[in-house]
Amino acid sequence: MSTNNSNALDALIQALRRLPGVGLKSASRMAFHLLQHDRSGAQLMAQALNQAVTQVLHCSMCNTFTQTEVCSTCQDSQRDQTRLCVVETPADQQALERTGAYKGLYFVLMGKLSPLDGIGPKDIGLQKLFQRVAPRAAAGEDRPVSVVTEVILATNFTAEGETTAHVISEGLKARGILVTRLARGVPIGSELEYVDLGTIAHALVDRR
Amino acid sequence: MSTNNSNALDALIQALRRLPGVGLKSASRMAFHLLQHDRSGAQLMAQALNQAVTQVLHCSMCNTFTQTEVCSTCQDSQRDQTRLCVVETPADQQALERTGAYKGLYFVLMGKLSPLDGIGPKDIGLQKLFQRVAPRAAAGEDRPVSVVTEVILATNFTAEGETTAHVISEGLKARGILVTRLARGVPIGSELEYVDLGTIAHALVDRR
Repeated sequence: MSTNNSNALDALIQALRRLPGVGLKSASRMAFHLLQHDRSGAQLMAQALNQAVTQVLHCSMCNTFTQTEVCSTCQDSQRDQTRLCVVETPADQQALERTGAYKGLYFVLMGKLSPLDGIGPKDIGLQKLFQRVAPRAAAGEDRPVSVVTEVILATNFTAEGETTAHVISEGLKARGILVTRLARGVPIGSELEYVDLGTIAHALVDRR
Repeated sequence: MSTNNSNALDALIQALRRLPGVGLKSASRMAFHLLQHDRSGAQLMAQALNQAVTQVLHCSMCNTFTQTEVCSTCQDSQRDQTRLCVVETPADQQALERTGAYKGLYFVLMGKLSPLDGIGPKDIGLQKLFQRVAPRAAAGEDRPVSVVTEVILATNFTAEGETTAHVISEGLKARGILVTRLARGVPIGSELEYVDLGTIAHALVDRR
């Protein structure tokens, strides 16, 4: 839809292309829809973008998105302060929360190690995680510095997620922390015939 | 990714869901990407949205998006003023322009008749088109009121596009204008075996 009739339209299409998974045709369709059918939606979106950019911070405890210094989950004194579950994204945290099976705290990496994409330990919250779990005591002090006794690795079961889990595991074991990983196994409701062999093999080894 | 930690984040996700083809998961992924990796892109997008909403108008001649009263295509005196090609969207106009085979003017409906979606003649530029092609002379006047001698219907070859073409055709023939339609036929590069029967039947009838 790019035309030489409207620079503002071209600029909007180019801006929309910065969204993940949106190419030229999708961006054009989006711009057309907003300008032809939903100008109030476009204004709302502009406002929401500006507000989010200025107001959304990272929680100083768990690194997730929040508008306060410490997010409401980390502020919740009812939660088990000794367990810390490490996830890649806020969406993963939400999935775990919806199970209702976990009452501890979280740490959100906001990414995963992915050397092929140039994403190394400094690009995700690894140092912040190590500092959160096992902060180094200031020189001369000798006090208990963290109440976390178990770190549960809930990064995805992809190549990058497994790598990330491995690196965290190595780093934390060196600091004397108990590190566990979500169980691998056959998903509920699935038929063995259609489950991949690696999963079945893991389920056999981890049988109970 | 929706959390109770950040109202600004939730508002952004809800705003992004107004884009066509974007559901909750896509909107969450987009918001995550913008806030984690591309805050400057988010600001740019907000700016582009506001500028487009305030600056993009409809051309008074052809109804397409433009920032001036009359778009540059309609202002081009090199173009054949007697031919007018009717398309559904600016994207369709662009496709025709890229062929280089058409030197006349355009009229962009900005939609198509779609009774099932509640889109009638008043929701697209039909009246504006009739006024453009065959304006009614003011009372008492008896002058030639339009130079358009041929209207080429280039709406899509879908059910809605064909309906739209039919309605325009009836309306303009009543006003004594020559109305033509893009030829239906076998696309270049295709093998007959894989072309649908309706297309082959049309190509047979319209053989030359």
